[in-house]
Amino acid sequence: MGPEEFRAAGHELIDWIADYRTRIPQLPVQAQVKPGEVAGKLPDRAPAQAEPFGQVLADLERVVVPGVTQVQHPRYFGWFPANASLASVLGDLAAGGLGALGITWQSAPALTEVEEVVVGWLRELTALPATWRGVIQDTASTACLVALLAARERATDYSEVRGGLQAEDAPLTVYTTEHAHSSVLKAVALAGFGRDNLRLIEVNPVTYAMRTEALAAAIEADVAAGHKPAAVVVNVGTTGTTAVDPLAEIVPLAGRYGMWVHVDAAMAGSALLLPEMRWLIDGVEDADSLNWNPHKWLGTLGDCSLLYVADPAHLIRVMSTNPSYLRSAVDGEVTQYKDWGIPLGRRFRALKLWFQLRLDGVEAIQARLRRDLDNARWLAGQVSSTPGWRVLAPVTLQTVVLRHEPPGAVSGTGVVLDADALNAHTIAWADAVNSSGAALVTPSLLDGVWSVRVSIGAEGTERPDVEELWGLLQQAVLRSGPT
Amino acid sequence: MGPEEFRAAGHELIDWIADYRTRIPQLPVQAQVKPGEVAGKLPDRAPAQAEPFGQVLADLERVVVPGVTQVQHPRYFGWFPANASLASVLGDLAAGGLGALGITWQSAPALTEVEEVVVGWLRELTALPATWRGVIQDTASTACLVALLAARERATDYSEVRGGLQAEDAPLTVYTTEHAHSSVLKAVALAGFGRDNLRLIEVNPVTYAMRTEALAAAIEADVAAGHKPAAVVVNVGTTGTTAVDPLAEIVPLAGRYGMWVHVDAAMAGSALLLPEMRWLIDGVEDADSLNWNPHKWLGTLGDCSLLYVADPAHLIRVMSTNPSYLRSAVDGEVTQYKDWGIPLGRRFRALKLWFQLRLDGVEAIQARLRRDLDNARWLAGQVSSTPGWRVLAPVTLQTVVLRHEPPGAVSGTGVVLDADALNAHTIAWADAVNSSGAALVTPSLLDGVWSVRVSIGAEGTERPDVEELWGLLQQAVLRSGPT
Repeated sequence: MGPEEFRAAGHELIDWIADYRTRIPQLPVQAQVKPGEVAGKLPDRAPAQAEPFGQVLADLERVVVPGVTQVQHPRYFGWFPANASLASVLGDLAAGGLGALGITWQSAPALTEVEEVVVGWLRELTALPATWRGVIQDTASTACLVALLAARERATDYSEVRGGLQAEDAPLTVYTTEHAHSSVLKAVALAGFGRDNLRLIEVNPVTYAMRTEALAAAIEADVAAGHKPAAVVVNVGTTGTTAVDPLAEIVPLAGRYGMWVHVDAAMAGSALLLPEMRWLIDGVEDADSLNWNPHKWLGTLGDCSLLYVADPAHLIRVMSTNPSYLRSAVDGEVTQYKDWGIPLGRRFRALKLWFQLRLDGVEAIQARLRRDLDNARWLAGQVSSTPGWRVLAPVTLQTVVLRHEPPGAVSGTGVVLDADALNAHTIAWADAVNSSGAALVTPSLLDGVWSVRVSIGAEGTERPDVEELWGLLQQAVLRSGPT
Repeated sequence: MGPEEFRAAGHELIDWIADYRTRIPQLPVQAQVKPGEVAGKLPDRAPAQAEPFGQVLADLERVVVPGVTQVQHPRYFGWFPANASLASVLGDLAAGGLGALGITWQSAPALTEVEEVVVGWLRELTALPATWRGVIQDTASTACLVALLAARERATDYSEVRGGLQAEDAPLTVYTTEHAHSSVLKAVALAGFGRDNLRLIEVNPVTYAMRTEALAAAIEADVAAGHKPAAVVVNVGTTGTTAVDPLAEIVPLAGRYGMWVHVDAAMAGSALLLPEMRWLIDGVEDADSLNWNPHKWLGTLGDCSLLYVADPAHLIRVMSTNPSYLRSAVDGEVTQYKDWGIPLGRRFRALKLWFQLRLDGVEAIQARLRRDLDNARWLAGQVSSTPGWRVLAPVTLQTVVLRHEPPGAVSGTGVVLDADALNAHTIAWADAVNSSGAALVTPSLLDGVWSVRVSIGAEGTERPDVEELWGLLQQAVLRSGPT
């Protein structure tokens, strides 16, 4: 395809996207397709000859759109927000059009330097320490793995250049809570620590935050047993309930053992743009790394996950390679992001952030985040004040964890009397909401019993959408009948 | 930014990209900026208020374009091709416009199923075993790490669920050659094997391919010493010289020891679309995994790297997570790509491939690849038949490794007599070509002496561009004067 064909097709596609974004509120939120239905609409093999663009665009509409759960929908309250702001879509298109090769500074100096500048802007906006430096990773999963690999190598005095982790004697141990995201457990496994060496520290039963005294006890027991505490993953805004571990208490404790402190603020990081929310990471100054995802609430098209580190030299020592074909005369003077993560090659992801921050402006983004916090508090108030309904966790951010409890399901002191019946009830009404296509919420286990997460923060979600959701939840409960 | 503002700005940006791609041949190939020059043009902080789109577009031109090495230029012969075909740019734009959330099948069924179908199309086009299944990863670096993690876990009977790699007794060993890409060494380090347990097997001095008998001897010595051979990374198309390790010999040997065989065909994979090139992977049927990068020669906008595995159940066992908030009723019936790699969330990358294959058509892509192979053979013929010039490695694909050898630099039998002088000469003329902006080539060490890689395969590179390059190389040598 040449530039003129691209021009014609590109204009068509831009119009299609503008129209699509406009009509999203009329689409069902949850995709209504069955397994295999999308694949069944596609031919068995690639076409030998070029097809006209109109045919591809028609298939986008016919095959793809019905197969996508509409997370840009104003009544999307599932998982976490996954906003893909149109300004960031343009930045990503610019990156594609440029077609730059991001393997070294030399291969695309602007790709490196715009990234340095923009992650610096966001460092300042989130009030992280001025000496920290950042890099864009794909996801929080990868960022956490990178942090744990760095922790592993620091704790073993860089075993990777000798016999590797398999040559180490005292088993390294890692600490977090059972409310940590599943990617933390995965990172522990992939980094080779082993499940037996992961400690899931007890949480406060009301706030679901890590109990520092339990962490201290676990560390002491491990040290006494000859283990070597290597890292703690501190959760600032857990997936289940947006719980916030007490970073300011954990950091000095970990420091006494030379442990790496990684802060997983994948969801909560966006809130740090609001000065009134910066208490979330009080104590971060002496941590080692922090990660958050602009591709969630902030609204940068994914994938876009920021990893900040106190000491990039350490990352580079763990990750660096230097083959002859990638060397250049300026190597000592420039940042080589290939040495700050797993992949050699990187997209020009910084353009998404650059476009979004410039085209939307910081104040408008802050206003949207405050709107969502207000909406969550409003919904929590409605739920709490309605008989039979309960808010199950502190509403720290924009997510409300709730349950409808029919008479007799829960004792006066909050003890679940018949978990099976209550679970069946919860799943029934949540499924009814979701399968209707009118809104999407996420069932989630809390203390072993199903609850429902309402995560507010789609770019288009206004107060009337939250009011409508609250009505839908109550209707769904009524229709699901007695348990 | 709302849909109507997006529409207006999007049309402007599409026109800008079409114009930009048209004028690339007039731009210098290598970016002419100095370290810090791009960053110096940007403000210290993000704007509080939204800026007009015209201002951002002007900065794209003023700040970014001069800071990008033009790998889409017809006289780009550096590193490896990094084509970003305009059809794939449109597919990527469609993905951005959709803004789908790729965490589970349920979150975007089409994202999973279009990926399954399209990687299936490419499996068939590259004649990989019909039972193998594929997944899109970001880069070959990550794909190799995933393969080595899978190898590690298979060799330790899944130590990740117990004490991890650190609890293993017999050290696991990994095998490749010194011509393996730097990312292979990095993956060995990150997976925790340790540099001491990586064996760089001797290569044939003419073809730079792994010597199977040397591999057999190394494995036997390790077994005798109580080590446990875990994996071999077979290079099909090395970065230095596009050397091809003898897969058909290595696979049965590795099989006798239960080793994982990973095939790194990052560059060469595109050639597998040509039936006459499928000898490259003869013997692949009993290997475990193969990776190649459509974002190189094939021309899919990066990042887009394909990992095929013989047994996906094994990947899933190593990578799987199953938190309550990601469960759904269809979990047993669908593919969950989150369990096939490191990140939980994934972009809708399949659309890039889907658009490219449909809008360009397979036959046109095949014709382009054959054109590049022809051009490489032509250039190699010119170099070989010109006194003072030498082709240093077999031209297996589209890369020619060459050197100009002034009188007295090399003996009649090909022995380098004064490496320092020859290196200075090579670097001088290669730098002269690159800094001129007229073309880009990549200096690379071969047998410890600098050579120059001419990697043909930019989408716009036609025979006259290769002829012009050959003239530029000869002129640069003449101008660099006597050594």
